[in-house]
Amino acid sequence: MGLPTKFDWQKLQQFCTDVFVEAGVEKEKAKVVAESLIQADLRGVASHGVVRTAIYLKRIEESMINPDADISIEKENDVTALVNGNNNFGSVVGSEALKIALSKAKDQGISLVGVKGSNHFGTGAYYALKAIEQNMILLVVSNASQTMPPTGGVRPFLGTNPIAVGVPAGNSDPFVLDMATSLVARGKIIVAAQKGESIPIGWAVDKNGNPTTDAEEALEGSVLPLAGPKGYAISMFIDILSGVLTGAGFGKYVNNMYENWEDPQNVGHSFIAIDINRFMQLKTFKQRMDMYIEDIKSEPKADGVEEILIPGEIESRRELELKENGIELPQKVAEELNEIGKRYGLSLEDASFQKQNVK
Amino acid sequence: MGLPTKFDWQKLQQFCTDVFVEAGVEKEKAKVVAESLIQADLRGVASHGVVRTAIYLKRIEESMINPDADISIEKENDVTALVNGNNNFGSVVGSEALKIALSKAKDQGISLVGVKGSNHFGTGAYYALKAIEQNMILLVVSNASQTMPPTGGVRPFLGTNPIAVGVPAGNSDPFVLDMATSLVARGKIIVAAQKGESIPIGWAVDKNGNPTTDAEEALEGSVLPLAGPKGYAISMFIDILSGVLTGAGFGKYVNNMYENWEDPQNVGHSFIAIDINRFMQLKTFKQRMDMYIEDIKSEPKADGVEEILIPGEIESRRELELKENGIELPQKVAEELNEIGKRYGLSLEDASFQKQNVK
Ligand SMILES: NC(=O)c1ccc[n+]([C@@H]2O[C@H](COP(=O)([O-])OP(=O)(O)OC[C@H]3O[C@@H](n4cnc5c(N)ncnc54)[C@H](O)[C@@H]3O)[C@@H](O)[C@H]2O)c1
Ligand SMILES: NC(=O)c1ccc[n+]([C@@H]2O[C@H](COP(=O)([O-])OP(=O)(O)OC[C@H]3O[C@@H](n4cnc5c(N)ncnc54)[C@H](O)[C@@H]3O)[C@@H](O)[C@H]2O)c1
Repeated sequence: MGLPTKFDWQKLQQFCTDVFVEAGVEKEKAKVVAESLIQADLRGVASHGVVRTAIYLKRIEESMINPDADISIEKENDVTALVNGNNNFGSVVGSEALKIALSKAKDQGISLVGVKGSNHFGTGAYYALKAIEQNMILLVVSNASQTMPPTGGVRPFLGTNPIAVGVPAGNSDPFVLDMATSLVARGKIIVAAQKGESIPIGWAVDKNGNPTTDAEEALEGSVLPLAGPKGYAISMFIDILSGVLTGAGFGKYVNNMYENWEDPQNVGHSFIAIDINRFMQLKTFKQRMDMYIEDIKSEPKADGVEEILIPGEIESRRELELKENGIELPQKVAEELNEIGKRYGLSLEDASFQKQNVK
Repeated sequence: MGLPTKFDWQKLQQFCTDVFVEAGVEKEKAKVVAESLIQADLRGVASHGVVRTAIYLKRIEESMINPDADISIEKENDVTALVNGNNNFGSVVGSEALKIALSKAKDQGISLVGVKGSNHFGTGAYYALKAIEQNMILLVVSNASQTMPPTGGVRPFLGTNPIAVGVPAGNSDPFVLDMATSLVARGKIIVAAQKGESIPIGWAVDKNGNPTTDAEEALEGSVLPLAGPKGYAISMFIDILSGVLTGAGFGKYVNNMYENWEDPQNVGHSFIAIDINRFMQLKTFKQRMDMYIEDIKSEPKADGVEEILIPGEIESRRELELKENGIELPQKVAEELNEIGKRYGLSLEDASFQKQNVK
């Protein structure tokens, strides 16, 4: 019998937590990293899911991530903070920065926490959803290593610098915008390459700047910013807020986690948190959000469209479904995880999805 | 001899100021409105230039804009404020909100000023540039009346809700992102219609949701969000921050300034200002910005590209050039302004561009 490829999310999360603990990560931190990866898989963002386990581990082993580093606050006042991740895990550093941002914004109304010395922090939704749980609005951005040319350029200069926004609603699903500033996230091309699939034209150019449908060639080339100069401008803005303003890397000074084994990534992030109560009662705001969402969802639909969706809805439905029916991983990813498990005496098979798990 | 179509920017600005004063607007406010319009023309954003004079005047006459209204602060703390424009001019209300945002952010590090009861506020760059003059970072958003369908919809629901960001640099031009969340601004289609020109495919759909190159048909239909669901999501976020959170209109409750003569527009805006000094010395930040900009500009260029540009550079160069060589207005717009001038005993011809104006 072959290796299972369908997994129970909680068991898989436990497996990943155990892996990181075995790799020397403190339990609470390991939990955060694993939670962020599994949540991405659950929400259909496989490119930022457990597929990243191997590279995260390798970067610990090569001292490119320091899971023991103290996260320090270098500057601080009532509404701002400059956090130095000192090269700990991106999701661990990001979670700490988020906590500070939410606490300051609750006290004061709005806050900005800038972060330097961090690493790849996973999906932006991971933070946006935590803010929503606390009835706060969050805008979070991160820079990333070079993958997109500026408008008029040929080779990668900017990252696909993600932006995410979380806004709580009442009875409706919350609003969760979470996107790369490329037309598609580079991670999706990685997944396509791993699956041996081709990619649609327009996603990327090859290393000579020519359009390509070959995922491997695209990975050697560049993904393209969304909407031409507009995506280029948004991506630059994110880099300024995440990197130029914080003292982190920016542009070519954000190191590639797959290619650079000399230096830490020095990724930067910025978290802006907003307390709704300073503008109106939370209850009123949620009613207005519900009204807004209902208005949109009841708009006439184009031919062949079943339903108008709110940003985040695709992902939250996927999450419910995969929690119930298991996470299917590509064979290649399952094999890689299995090898990792063996190295630490952990069994990936124990995390496989059993029909009878469902109540 | 026919009506001149080329104008000296300062004289044209004076002409517009005088027009608004004659229409009953207090001098200081008239200056702000005229400055915002002329700046748009100078920066090549003709869609938001003096072409809007007629509609602004008509809205005063029909009591849809109240230039005498007091702008009030309904809620306030050290870092937040909720401003009610009470239906004054958008650029007047926006300028007041900006002032509050900059002052709070200078004192505290970051601020958020939400605005309701406002009107069309012109270009976002108008505010971004003022923030840059004070060495501050600004993120400003506004909602607008319905012009774009949500992803999967057919008819206009969202506005082309603009977002602008200003960031000071050292020796380089500052970074000025200023964009509609449509692939192109609706104003550009208005200008094309006025010029009797056709528009490229992909800018808009007609009222039945079909692609069109006819500017008039496009104005009856909808412009499309940039990058599909990503533009839709960004536009919704802007609407939430500008409208849902502030108590202004949002979605279908932002009234169209050309079509609705029963109710004020109730546009909303939000201003987030950031003090760089809370994160690093301004001087260091400006050096980092210069380095970033130089890095980008020295990237290898694609075939046929003369120069890689920074957002805002096209516009700031245009501004320098048109200040020197005059603003050329479409015949139709000049005629309309001329009629307006006549009504108030003001001569548009006095504002015409004279070669000898140039040093
Ligand atoms: N950490 C990093 O360095 C980094 C870099 C890039 C991307 N990412 C992550 O990659 C992930 C994927 O990004 P992406 O750009 O591929 O996302 P995507 O294109 O799948 O979705 C973008 C957004 O659009 C919404 N959306 C999509 N289709 C929709 C529809 N029909 N109706 C309404 N809304 C719709 C989604 O809910 C989402 O909010 C994100 O989680 C992002 O944070 C991370
Ligand atoms: N008040 C309102 O309701 C409202 C609504 C929509 C738009 N607007 C305004 O309309 C104006 C026009 O918007 P738009 O979307 O048509 O702008 P645009 O597409 O001309 O430019 C968008 C941005 O991209 C940059 N850019 C363009 N080409 C570039 C290149 N080759 N290299 C680098 N940067 C480049 C520009 O500098 C600008 O910052 C803006 O001023 C906006 O504020 C206002």
